[in-house]
Amino acid sequence: MNPFHPLDVILRKRDGHPLSDDQIQGFVRAVVDRTPDRPLITDAQIAAFLMAVFWRGLDTRELATLTSAMRSSGDVFDAASLNTFTVDKHSTGGVGDKTSLLIAPILAAAGLENPGPDGVPGICVPMISGRSLGHTGGTLDKLETIPGFNTQLNLDELAATLKRCGAALIGQTPRIVPADRTLYALRDHTGTVESPFLITASIMSKKLAESLKALVLDVKVGSGAFMPTYEASRQLADLLVKTGVISGTRTVALLTRMDEPLGRFSGNWVEVWECVDILRGIRHPMSHDLIELSNIMAGWMLHLAGRASTAEEGARLSDRILSSGKAYQAWLGIAAAQGGDVRVFDDPAARHKPAARRVLMAESSGYLASMNCKQVGWAVQRLGAGRARPGDPVSAHAGIESHAKLGQPVEQGQPLFTLFSEDASLLDEPEQMLRETLQISSTMPRIQPLIRETIPSA
Amino acid sequence: MNPFHPLDVILRKRDGHPLSDDQIQGFVRAVVDRTPDRPLITDAQIAAFLMAVFWRGLDTRELATLTSAMRSSGDVFDAASLNTFTVDKHSTGGVGDKTSLLIAPILAAAGLENPGPDGVPGICVPMISGRSLGHTGGTLDKLETIPGFNTQLNLDELAATLKRCGAALIGQTPRIVPADRTLYALRDHTGTVESPFLITASIMSKKLAESLKALVLDVKVGSGAFMPTYEASRQLADLLVKTGVISGTRTVALLTRMDEPLGRFSGNWVEVWECVDILRGIRHPMSHDLIELSNIMAGWMLHLAGRASTAEEGARLSDRILSSGKAYQAWLGIAAAQGGDVRVFDDPAARHKPAARRVLMAESSGYLASMNCKQVGWAVQRLGAGRARPGDPVSAHAGIESHAKLGQPVEQGQPLFTLFSEDASLLDEPEQMLRETLQISSTMPRIQPLIRETIPSA
Repeated sequence: MNPFHPLDVILRKRDGHPLSDDQIQGFVRAVVDRTPDRPLITDAQIAAFLMAVFWRGLDTRELATLTSAMRSSGDVFDAASLNTFTVDKHSTGGVGDKTSLLIAPILAAAGLENPGPDGVPGICVPMISGRSLGHTGGTLDKLETIPGFNTQLNLDELAATLKRCGAALIGQTPRIVPADRTLYALRDHTGTVESPFLITASIMSKKLAESLKALVLDVKVGSGAFMPTYEASRQLADLLVKTGVISGTRTVALLTRMDEPLGRFSGNWVEVWECVDILRGIRHPMSHDLIELSNIMAGWMLHLAGRASTAEEGARLSDRILSSGKAYQAWLGIAAAQGGDVRVFDDPAARHKPAARRVLMAESSGYLASMNCKQVGWAVQRLGAGRARPGDPVSAHAGIESHAKLGQPVEQGQPLFTLFSEDASLLDEPEQMLRETLQISSTMPRIQPLIRETIPSA
Repeated sequence: MNPFHPLDVILRKRDGHPLSDDQIQGFVRAVVDRTPDRPLITDAQIAAFLMAVFWRGLDTRELATLTSAMRSSGDVFDAASLNTFTVDKHSTGGVGDKTSLLIAPILAAAGLENPGPDGVPGICVPMISGRSLGHTGGTLDKLETIPGFNTQLNLDELAATLKRCGAALIGQTPRIVPADRTLYALRDHTGTVESPFLITASIMSKKLAESLKALVLDVKVGSGAFMPTYEASRQLADLLVKTGVISGTRTVALLTRMDEPLGRFSGNWVEVWECVDILRGIRHPMSHDLIELSNIMAGWMLHLAGRASTAEEGARLSDRILSSGKAYQAWLGIAAAQGGDVRVFDDPAARHKPAARRVLMAESSGYLASMNCKQVGWAVQRLGAGRARPGDPVSAHAGIESHAKLGQPVEQGQPLFTLFSEDASLLDEPEQMLRETLQISSTMPRIQPLIRETIPSA
């Protein structure tokens, strides 16, 4: 192993030359191992390197090496001892996207039906999720509205829950991919967040720390997507898939439409409520797109896990598992195993107690033509459901209910959104934000399909 | 004035958009005004910004604004009170380049001959110089081999010396362009040194802090130049001239050949010795290129100061001032005013007392065809004359004497270089470095002219 020189690595990347595996591994080790007494690399050097990567990019090998080095910078979940098929999904984030709360129990139910010889479910979902930030929601914030639900399991507790329940939904710990924690904090204040290469390394290092055999990625496109253009989302999807495949994980990415909130509710408890309804067989018309996307993603996961000969067959299997109530049983098992008080699922609507609500009505008749979905996400955040900064508190009961979907005919005075908040003074600005962004047109708009593209293509 | 947001500035430059003057000024102020209690900008943000500038460049207005904001970040020499024509030169650094020690007294002599109504020399050279670093020499290190010579004058002492002597040669102080001190230290370890834009801002902010009416720049090209290619040197020269002109300084840049050491000696005291010889009328054949370049640059300075109708006429005037002994008288005045013991100039050869010397002989007959002049500079540094790191000590007596110039016929066994050091053990490596880099060919090589180009062209 050659000694690591931060400047060499910066200069090579700056000048557009590929980095050796040694150099990339040395960089990640220096980021993690540095201390005030051993300044193996400075913040300024990390920032200069990140900006050089933003500029020059990484080739497939460099990206795989960076991802792998980041993955190995901390604790890694040891799936080998479980003798199961580990599979997970990841979404680049959207508004009202609660598919994890459906997909995890669907896959768990499939795994529990087919245990291995040692009784471990044949499929396990070791799902490590994130929190709401900016205009996007976060699975952990939703789960934590369930009384007693503990998302802070360590890796041993994760394994134990998987053995019993087939899935667990937990939060990132400081010991999982510590390199990403340092790099992300620096990227956030040095203008190096939006690099598809750095995004890929960040996402995939954390997902691969789950020791997955298969991974299905939902890369959002449209006005609510993190990436600014379709092409940027497509490039990110390509990089994510390539990086997964190189690491030996069967990886598929779906480019999916995020130009309106997914499903009926956007918020925290309201999203749990929506999922519990679905798991219990109640399919509200506004939840149609959510159910469709969840079945398609779960279908891919079942297919990659060998439980369906095609993704389409997998999607049909997923829907059957959902309809049968088996996914709900799996969900009750997971929630209980993680300390949740499952009695709240008996009447989830009753727990929704926002102090203030307001209905936003259509100002004219026509077709609901478009909205800036990011703006809708920010309105949800301002209602109290999300956070502008890491560490801010979130409200369980704030959020919005969608009463119409894009392309649908609406009449003047018809409710389009109901806004919920724990403080009536918080309603005005989000109402204004939503009002400004909703477009009603007299002609029927062209609405894109939910799944825009699948990578790799069939 | 809008509040300064570091991230906005990084993102705009990263995405290739021009920065407003407010943003650039805000950046420089934040760099200078930040304290641990007021972290207006972090090292990481500065580094990310510098890498973004390395990538995207700066347009002429942005560069002029950055340079001006850096210049104004600390003390500025107030030349108005002197009522004189301030002029200076700057070189991008080379091996054996001691033109400052000739040009300053030549211009001072011209100024002393034509004082203004209040007795101040009509031309003044407020020369702020640097130290040796890497393969290049530094004027301050040479001057400090003169017993008693004090380069650490403050700006009041600088003004007093100029009034009396027409020139002063001093070092940078922490209060002159403090922004450059911070930025340079960060550039040095984040791989952002070689940006022509950042180099221009660094050079010109310091030169313009001298409140110059005219400036002549020597931008080196060839194997000993800092910039890697002719085109890179040319781009730098263009940027330097544009930035000078925008600030109201008459500015000319010469692209000059640095593919072998300039003059007879490279080192510290040996370079003073060579200049004292020339000032006293002793013109060693090996000093020919040094005298030519000094006269051409001084000629431009005299022309810009209105003392010659063309640069060529200025060069002839410069040579007359040199031959007449007036430049030597001016030199004695400057040296004495800065505390130097001028008796050492009576027999400078006698003061050259290296503990060890070695002669490097031609290994074959032919023409001296080429050398890597940067390698020669590093050999001089390894002999003890230079420093690899800021703050390292330098030897007064180490260095080399050149016995042949490129293009000259040489015979096997003829001396090419004599190496001097204060420690015999330091001779082997530099000898090897020189031996490796010298090329003797059987055909006459094509040698470029000393002045490759003048910007702006006539």
